[in-house]
Amino acid sequence: MKVIVTKENLNNALRKVISGVSSRPLIPILTNVLLHAEGDRMVIKASDSDISVTTWIPALVEEEGETTLPGKKLQQIITSFNVGDITIESDAEDNSRITSGPSQFTIHGLSSVDYPKENAVTYDWSFQMKTRDLARGIAMVVYARSVDTDRRQLNGVVMSIRSGMVTFAATDGRRLSICEIPLDDPNAKEGDYILPSRSSVDLGKCVEDGGDTITISLSSSCVSFESMNTTLVTKLVEGVYPNFRQVVPANCGNSVTVPRQNLINVMSRVSLVLTDQYAIKLNFTENKLTISANSAETGYSEESMDVAFTGEEVSVSFNPTFFLEPLKVMDVDNVTIEFGKQYMPVKLTGDDGFLAMVMPMRA
Amino acid sequence: MKVIVTKENLNNALRKVISGVSSRPLIPILTNVLLHAEGDRMVIKASDSDISVTTWIPALVEEEGETTLPGKKLQQIITSFNVGDITIESDAEDNSRITSGPSQFTIHGLSSVDYPKENAVTYDWSFQMKTRDLARGIAMVVYARSVDTDRRQLNGVVMSIRSGMVTFAATDGRRLSICEIPLDDPNAKEGDYILPSRSSVDLGKCVEDGGDTITISLSSSCVSFESMNTTLVTKLVEGVYPNFRQVVPANCGNSVTVPRQNLINVMSRVSLVLTDQYAIKLNFTENKLTISANSAETGYSEESMDVAFTGEEVSVSFNPTFFLEPLKVMDVDNVTIEFGKQYMPVKLTGDDGFLAMVMPMRA
Repeated sequence: MKVIVTKENLNNALRKVISGVSSRPLIPILTNVLLHAEGDRMVIKASDSDISVTTWIPALVEEEGETTLPGKKLQQIITSFNVGDITIESDAEDNSRITSGPSQFTIHGLSSVDYPKENAVTYDWSFQMKTRDLARGIAMVVYARSVDTDRRQLNGVVMSIRSGMVTFAATDGRRLSICEIPLDDPNAKEGDYILPSRSSVDLGKCVEDGGDTITISLSSSCVSFESMNTTLVTKLVEGVYPNFRQVVPANCGNSVTVPRQNLINVMSRVSLVLTDQYAIKLNFTENKLTISANSAETGYSEESMDVAFTGEEVSVSFNPTFFLEPLKVMDVDNVTIEFGKQYMPVKLTGDDGFLAMVMPMRA
Repeated sequence: MKVIVTKENLNNALRKVISGVSSRPLIPILTNVLLHAEGDRMVIKASDSDISVTTWIPALVEEEGETTLPGKKLQQIITSFNVGDITIESDAEDNSRITSGPSQFTIHGLSSVDYPKENAVTYDWSFQMKTRDLARGIAMVVYARSVDTDRRQLNGVVMSIRSGMVTFAATDGRRLSICEIPLDDPNAKEGDYILPSRSSVDLGKCVEDGGDTITISLSSSCVSFESMNTTLVTKLVEGVYPNFRQVVPANCGNSVTVPRQNLINVMSRVSLVLTDQYAIKLNFTENKLTISANSAETGYSEESMDVAFTGEEVSVSFNPTFFLEPLKVMDVDNVTIEFGKQYMPVKLTGDDGFLAMVMPMRA
C-alpha cells in the first residue's frame, strides 16, 4: 500500500475512529487501526467487540492495499507533523514508512489478514435525523446513566421511538434525563433501542463534520449511524429498558421559573461548605427560594433569590451534583422547577425538549 | 474583627499566600490563614514549618482584631463570589460570617491565639533585584532540581552570590541549570544560599504584582523576599551546595546554533516512537544534525536539519526529557548546542543568561 493524504484529513479521521480503539482489547490487533487504500480513497477503521467506526478520506493512492498500525501511536505521530502532505508506504512485513517533510517514521504494524471481519447485518428499517439533534440528544442525557456494572441496561442510553418522537433517556434510579426530538417518518417502527455506554459517549465525536443528516439503521441486535463519510455500528444492549415515561408526573403541584446560570452559580457557591455530608436544601416560601447547606466541620451557607411562588412553604433536600448536572447540560436561559411536597421528585424543564427528574434526599 | 474588602483584593491575597498553606501540616491550625485587621489594612498570613507568606490589602476596618479560617475553603468561597464588596465579621468563638451580595456563609475558624508566632530574625544584609529577574531566574532553573529525598541540598535551588552576579542553579547530578543575573551592589556578601524546594516553586506566585523591585534579606538560616505588599520568609537548607561552576567546561570543542522551537518540535516528534527504552540520538555530520530514535516495539524515526557544522562525525544519546526541559524554559529564538565527543556532557545556551548542561546516556 502506498498513499498520500493531507495531515488535516488524516488527523480528523483518526480523531473520529480513535474512540473505537480499545486500550485493552480482547484481541491485541484491535489496538490497531485498519488502513485500506483503494481508488481515490483511504478507509480508516477501528473496532472493538461492541463498536466499530469506519471513515474515509480522499487519498492519492499510488499502490492499493491495506495494513494495520497502532491507533493511538499513529494519531500522536500524525498530530505532531506540520501541515502538509503525508505519505504512508507499507511493505510486505506490514512495516509502514510514514514521511512528511523532513520527518521519517518506520512503524511496526500487523497484517490486516488478522483483523477481525464483521458479520453482515441486515437492517430492518432506517430513518434520518439532523446530525446536531442526534449529537445533542445523546450528549444531554448521558450524564444520568448508571455506572453500576450490575445493571447493564441502565449503563447505556435508550433511544425510544414512539408517537412521532425519538426520545433519548438515561437513568440510574436516582435521576432521570429525557430529551425528545420530533421524528417525521410515517413508517417509523416503535421500539426501545439501548445504546451501550461507550457508543453513547463516542457518537458525538464520530458524527461531527459529517454533513447535516445522519441515517440511522436498526436491527434487533445492531444500530448503525451513517454520516457523509463515517459509519458507527454498535451492538445494542439486550434486555428491556424500564418504562421511564411513567416516572414523570404530568403535574407536580408547584412551579417556579428561574435564570438557569444564576441558579447554577448560587447552588455551586452554597455547596462549598459541604465536606462531611452532601445535601443542599431548597426552601420555597412566599416569592422566595432560599438555598442552604450545613456542614458540622466547615459551617453554614445560604443564599436567596426572588421567585414567583405563592402557597405553603416547601423544603426539599438534594445531592447538589444531581441537581447541577442537568442544569449544566441544558441550553436555555430559564429553567422551570416543578415540585410537590418534601420527599417528592422534582422536575426540571426548559423549552429545548429536555426534561430531568431528580429524587430528593431523605432527611 | 469586622472588615470590608473587595473580592479582587482578597482573591489576589489568598492566591499569593495559599501556597504557604500546607495540606497536611504538623500543627492542624496551619491549614488556616491568619486574618489580622488593623488601621486601614487586613493582613493575611499563611505558614508551615519552613515558609511563611504575609501580605496585606486595603480594608475598611469596622472592628480591629484577628482570627483564622481554613485557607483553601476560604479561597474557594471568595472565588465563587461575584465582583463586589465582601464583609467578614468574626465572633468571640471565631466563627466568621462572610457576606457578599445575597450570599451568606458562617465558617468555623480557630482562635489566632493558637497560631504559631515566629522568632524574630536579624538579617545580615539585604540587596534588591528586579522582580521579574528573580521570578525568571528561579522559574528557569527549578526543573533540574533533584526529587530524590535523600539529597536535601539538591532538592532546592541555590542562590549563589559571587563576582557581581546572582546565580540561580539547580542540579540532580544528571543535568544542571544555571541562570545568571548581574548584581550591582558593592557591599554584596558572597555566599551560597539553598532555597527549599517548595519556596522555589512558590516564590514566583508571591512576588507577582508586588511592584518592580524585591528586597532580599539574608541571614545564615533564613531569607526573606519582600515586595511592596508581600513578604515570603523561608528557612534555608543547611549544608553545602556542590560546586556547580566546575562542571561547566569553558569550551566543549564543537558548537552549532539552531532555532529553538524547531529543535523542540523535531525532538518531541522523533521521541514519539519511544516506549520500551528512552533515548534519542543526535548525530552531527557535515552541515547536518540528524535526530533519531529506535524502539523494538514501535519502530524507528529520524529527522534532519541543516546546521553550520564541520569536523568529525559525533553521535551523542540523551534522555529526550532532559534535553527538552531546558529548551522549553529558555526564552530565546536560537539555542547554541556545544558538544565534544560521544560521552561528554552537552552545553545549551541562549543569550538570556541561561545555561544548561545535560549528561549523555551510555550506550
